[in-house]
Amino acid sequence: MAATKYDHDPRLDLVIERIIDVPRELVWKAWTTPEHLMKWFTPAPWMTVACEIDLRPGGLFYTVMRSPEGTDHPNTGCYLEVVENEKLVWTDALEGGYRPSEKPSDCLVSFFFTAIIMLEPHKDGTKYTVIALHGNEEGRKKHEEMGFHEGWGTTLDQMVAYVKTL
Amino acid sequence: MAATKYDHDPRLDLVIERIIDVPRELVWKAWTTPEHLMKWFTPAPWMTVACEIDLRPGGLFYTVMRSPEGTDHPNTGCYLEVVENEKLVWTDALEGGYRPSEKPSDCLVSFFFTAIIMLEPHKDGTKYTVIALHGNEEGRKKHEEMGFHEGWGTTLDQMVAYVKTL
Repeated sequence: MAATKYDHDPRLDLVIERIIDVPRELVWKAWTTPEHLMKWFTPAPWMTVACEIDLRPGGLFYTVMRSPEGTDHPNTGCYLEVVENEKLVWTDALEGGYRPSEKPSDCLVSFFFTAIIMLEPHKDGTKYTVIALHGNEEGRKKHEEMGFHEGWGTTLDQMVAYVKTL
Repeated sequence: MAATKYDHDPRLDLVIERIIDVPRELVWKAWTTPEHLMKWFTPAPWMTVACEIDLRPGGLFYTVMRSPEGTDHPNTGCYLEVVENEKLVWTDALEGGYRPSEKPSDCLVSFFFTAIIMLEPHKDGTKYTVIALHGNEEGRKKHEEMGFHEGWGTTLDQMVAYVKTL
């Protein structure tokens, strides 16, 4: 089966590309194990206080983020592609079992997005690429304004620091 | 990888289960080939006047239905699981490439749903199951009220009659 192409559209999508000095097997572990993910997934002083991962296409990806004030914000998503150490795709437009999603009213994110994480071997460690796909320009703008680049950048730094301790 | 379970929730989901007297290989062909799909997909006197099928997870499923008055209604979806002769899953909550969907204003369906088509061998032909998953009760009700059972039943009759001519 041909691999899905991920041409992105700058009008609709956001991209982060970084070389990180850790092996991709550890990055995969950090993304796919609740115990590890909870250590780095949310920019401090926010915390990830719950995580469920059913790692297969159609499986649930659930997290709860707690604000510094102690308010909890659940996020529900569905895995779409799971290729060990290479590619992880999920969307919050679906829940577990591919059911169309309703945004809970206390969710932080008012638009839907699909996240594609790609890991490629690199001489200095791993080439790490995130693409966030949105349904329209408004979704892309909102995601940008809520600090996509800073947030995903900070948590990536947290992840790299954390997996080095493993 | 474990198979996705399709437990359905009568509050949220709609199900059709029928034994049809045609082999599942023909049903698969009818569902996955634009030329064939256009022959049966829409209850007459409606017509399917365009169809694009990119048959892989993440691939586009696009159709245009024409009303008896000549108005065209596009439908855009994304394949999620493609298991030849066995299972076809797609959703209109996503477009091709897993991008979250925007409903076009001229789309007939005002809610999102995920369709699961399952084909099992049966002594009389094929056990044919459709499950339509909705994000909430309102979606299920709207789909029911717009004639889910009659519509999918009629098109299934059309499909069976058509594939017998192949």
